[in-house]
Amino acid sequence: MNVFYLPDATEGMVSFPEEESKHCVKVLRMQAGDRFCVTDGKGSLYDGELVEAHPKRATVCLTNKRQGYDNKSFKIEIAIAPTKLNERTEWFLEKATEIGIDKVQLFASYHSERRVANVDRLRKVMIAAMKQSIKSKLPEIDDVVDFNKLVKQPFNGQKFIAWIDDNVTELLCDKYEKGKNALVLIGPEGDFSPEEVQLAKDNGFIPVSLGDARLRTETAAVVACHTVNLINQMKRK
Amino acid sequence: MNVFYLPDATEGMVSFPEEESKHCVKVLRMQAGDRFCVTDGKGSLYDGELVEAHPKRATVCLTNKRQGYDNKSFKIEIAIAPTKLNERTEWFLEKATEIGIDKVQLFASYHSERRVANVDRLRKVMIAAMKQSIKSKLPEIDDVVDFNKLVKQPFNGQKFIAWIDDNVTELLCDKYEKGKNALVLIGPEGDFSPEEVQLAKDNGFIPVSLGDARLRTETAAVVACHTVNLINQMKRK
Repeated sequence: MNVFYLPDATEGMVSFPEEESKHCVKVLRMQAGDRFCVTDGKGSLYDGELVEAHPKRATVCLTNKRQGYDNKSFKIEIAIAPTKLNERTEWFLEKATEIGIDKVQLFASYHSERRVANVDRLRKVMIAAMKQSIKSKLPEIDDVVDFNKLVKQPFNGQKFIAWIDDNVTELLCDKYEKGKNALVLIGPEGDFSPEEVQLAKDNGFIPVSLGDARLRTETAAVVACHTVNLINQMKRK
Repeated sequence: MNVFYLPDATEGMVSFPEEESKHCVKVLRMQAGDRFCVTDGKGSLYDGELVEAHPKRATVCLTNKRQGYDNKSFKIEIAIAPTKLNERTEWFLEKATEIGIDKVQLFASYHSERRVANVDRLRKVMIAAMKQSIKSKLPEIDDVVDFNKLVKQPFNGQKFIAWIDDNVTELLCDKYEKGKNALVLIGPEGDFSPEEVQLAKDNGFIPVSLGDARLRTETAAVVACHTVNLINQMKRK
């Protein structure tokens, strides 16, 4: 099933913007009468039918507006420092979008390998993953913020900080309470400084481990994201 | 900490093979007296010290043989069809090695996109991940086998088959029993045929879902691997 992204989707006749029109008509060579799925990235899916195969401004008819299967009762946010290799951050965004995530917060900290990010490019990775996994919600992603500012932002839910420290023995999977919103800070490739860990603790972040395996930054981020999703799926409390 | 791989490691004076010698002496420019870690890929780690910095046959002294942190009481095997894009299979192998896996079984099935694999290249990905995450065990990987043969092989533990089917409502995380060995078959990009699913069931495989998210093959494999590891880490049963 082909999926298109139209942020301002409504039932009835609508136009695709240039990029989606081109993909639909030129790349996929769709013709009038062909059917597909449309996501608005805000929680709704639609059935779509191509009415006029214009390569720059395709006209489509949208019906059967419905909630996506990815509407959930909890929110999961991951804060991560952009990795030295961009592809590792992009890989995390793709996988987290597939598994389920509401917001990614990029940050720069003392040992960060990279302090800037091309957010437009990263958002495109998430849009592609959203379409591929037929999700109705596009995760949010904001520009890089300073770690010291990030930890002071309000958050309605449980806040965790995960990094490599032999003294941290509590696991995210044991501390996270099913149904609650979760924000997890993931240590950058150079890890957090002791001052940063203390600042996070002072601001209500709970230190947690993701297990005894030594994970790369982007693997840790995917593991944290999956942990919260899994605990919400499990029958056992 | 630099980590080197020496399958026939023992305490005392040993020689590195050409590749590890080159990496140690030429690439990392290590000198006599420099210290590092050595894994034998079979469950043991050693402290190492460079004695003679020969670029093709470095001499090292190994001491303090010990069990790696990745020795576990359960085994996890994932069977996966090689993905159309090799890099997606390689990515799975890297992440699974970091998270914890004992064996990867490649298979070819009715809808497989790819029926051959360069196992030597794939093993190198796992060796690099083992070193990076300081693991003492190198996961096994064998050449591609036919699906019909794979499902008939004996396995001492719980056997699962995961694919996309709205009728499968039991979750791997609910059916897997902590402490047991697990083998999970992951559907290929074209998914299993109904006959293949039936054959697996007939051979004792339990049909399970990985949740309601639609995951790519390699994401599903990582999620299955992490699920088994996580349930073994959790305090709750």
